[in-house]
Amino acid sequence: MPVSFEVIHRSQENQGRVGRLTTPHGQVETPVFMPVGTQATVKTMSPDELAELGVGILLCNTYHLYLRPGHDLIQRAGGLHRFMNWPRGILTDSGGFQVFSLAHLRTVAEEGVTFRSHLDGSTHFIGPEESMAIQQALGADIAMTFDECVPYPSTYEYTAKSVELTSRWAERCLKAHRREDQALFGIVQGGMFADLRRQSALELVQMGFPGYAIGGLSVGEPKELMNEMLEVTVPLLPEDKPRYLMGVGSPDCLFEGVERGVDMFDCVLPTRLARHGTALTGEGRIIIRDAAYAEDFGPLDPHCGCYVCRNYSRAYLRHLFKAKEILGMRLVTWHNLAFLLGLMDAIRDALREGRFASLKASFFASYYGHT
Amino acid sequence: MPVSFEVIHRSQENQGRVGRLTTPHGQVETPVFMPVGTQATVKTMSPDELAELGVGILLCNTYHLYLRPGHDLIQRAGGLHRFMNWPRGILTDSGGFQVFSLAHLRTVAEEGVTFRSHLDGSTHFIGPEESMAIQQALGADIAMTFDECVPYPSTYEYTAKSVELTSRWAERCLKAHRREDQALFGIVQGGMFADLRRQSALELVQMGFPGYAIGGLSVGEPKELMNEMLEVTVPLLPEDKPRYLMGVGSPDCLFEGVERGVDMFDCVLPTRLARHGTALTGEGRIIIRDAAYAEDFGPLDPHCGCYVCRNYSRAYLRHLFKAKEILGMRLVTWHNLAFLLGLMDAIRDALREGRFASLKASFFASYYGHT
Repeated sequence: MPVSFEVIHRSQENQGRVGRLTTPHGQVETPVFMPVGTQATVKTMSPDELAELGVGILLCNTYHLYLRPGHDLIQRAGGLHRFMNWPRGILTDSGGFQVFSLAHLRTVAEEGVTFRSHLDGSTHFIGPEESMAIQQALGADIAMTFDECVPYPSTYEYTAKSVELTSRWAERCLKAHRREDQALFGIVQGGMFADLRRQSALELVQMGFPGYAIGGLSVGEPKELMNEMLEVTVPLLPEDKPRYLMGVGSPDCLFEGVERGVDMFDCVLPTRLARHGTALTGEGRIIIRDAAYAEDFGPLDPHCGCYVCRNYSRAYLRHLFKAKEILGMRLVTWHNLAFLLGLMDAIRDALREGRFASLKASFFASYYGHT
Repeated sequence: MPVSFEVIHRSQENQGRVGRLTTPHGQVETPVFMPVGTQATVKTMSPDELAELGVGILLCNTYHLYLRPGHDLIQRAGGLHRFMNWPRGILTDSGGFQVFSLAHLRTVAEEGVTFRSHLDGSTHFIGPEESMAIQQALGADIAMTFDECVPYPSTYEYTAKSVELTSRWAERCLKAHRREDQALFGIVQGGMFADLRRQSALELVQMGFPGYAIGGLSVGEPKELMNEMLEVTVPLLPEDKPRYLMGVGSPDCLFEGVERGVDMFDCVLPTRLARHGTALTGEGRIIIRDAAYAEDFGPLDPHCGCYVCRNYSRAYLRHLFKAKEILGMRLVTWHNLAFLLGLMDAIRDALREGRFASLKASFFASYYGHT
């Protein structure tokens, strides 16, 4: 088994659990947040800094790496870990989500998806077998099945057909996947329809994956609908396998996912916000360019003990952003990752100690300003 | 004395010497290369990384910091060291060079220079007293006198008048400078005219500065002319004071300066080249985007032991640049600084051990490909 998972504590308050995910590149405690390194780098950060922050696993995007520099090149470099100098865990997505995001640039058929590159307009085809070949060449610890992610909103009819296609593709992925040091996770789809989510989950679980993702959420639907879909889906997934909610990473959704039994998350939110000068703090978001911080010589987040908050002031960070200096993006990215990783630490501790609801209430009151 | 200087070894081969420069923020061995942190940050680098590279002193630009975020703000932040979280040495230039670079945006009078901001077109005035006030507010370890840097080429008449103005301004700077934890260095001008260089040097030395810069070189003149001006100027400067060749940092000019008795250098070259993807290596410059490096899995510089060369391949660095990832600029900047700082280490060792000429010959043969 390339990847093993063990639940080490079950919450008495909710469906949440603390677990341990072991990959060929180390162990991480779950619930875990995975930063996104789209192009084989978490934007602005070095791998050493990610390790120092305690990142144990990150996500890279198959679609981007397939187009540039190419999975063959990365394979010849010794695989993604070696290429990007990252000795810890990596998960690659299947390329499906990005390809479907291209909208008018792609056509879907039973075989797979034909699409035009966003880089140079060249035509490409990726189906389940191609996605497996690419991901095996990249050599992440965890690969994902190739799925169709339907947009929100979509009709019941379209979504139903898509769920069936996604299941057939998952079967083909299983068949095509051979790499023994890499785990292949299945992805549950089903849009915003409870019975389709159930159908998708049951079909995938029957195939016996070592982990399951919940895809197609956080695509623009109301938060309540996402929670409802999680409540329908998670109980159908095996207790002893990790559950991964794809593309989710806002603080509120991390709490909602964890208490419904999700173990893994990824999102560009902390890093993308940072590059635009928005910092996550215990008291909500801060837009660092704001004139209010021009002479604020205190730290970004007074309750944070990260490298950035220990060493730099809001006034300096604001100056760096106003002057378009790269160090500004670096430091706010560092802080935002420290903030989200620290939040996950706090969530795991609260699960263990039976005070998740209390942590959630106090965090929401302080971060979102409502009780 | 805020700054002291001691010559610890004199070369038998040439005018070069090894020295020790002590400032309120530590000691550096000379000849020293100072990286440039124009806007209170060495572009793409964190101060911790600079310290790890062994940087002991860096240069910040008065003109830029005066305009943004403003010297008053930096003073209220506790000074430049604290503002930018840099506990080691800092030298600020006088603002003169930048102001004169604005060309049609400025007018020169006896009092000082009126200029328009490159940021918003607003009108400003800086004379010797203003430059001293700004630099004292910034609080670097070493401040520079406000001088006129004449363009190349300039007429003898214009340069002669300019030398006189620069001397009068230097007197006014001396009078206006009060900060006891900050040294004020004088700047020798004189364009490309030996007698004006001599006049400027003699006038400045008479004023008794704790260090002397040679300004107005490396402004487009042939390298031989620069060397000639150094040979005229340096012997007139006191043996026991540091000599600083402003704006110079290409490897060949570092050798030429050192053997003519220069102790300090600064230049944007290594950091600016890096951001455009040009790396300095023992075998000359490498343009990392070049297709030749697409599958080159070896280090940037096989003879370099820096963090970047130990951990990343040319293929990965090329990918980062092609994909416009900030980590690429960071890593090449790191390497280029390591390269130049390492070169200065080697130069100091060679001076000590009486093999400067041999180091210079082998470096030129390997780097420039000529003997």
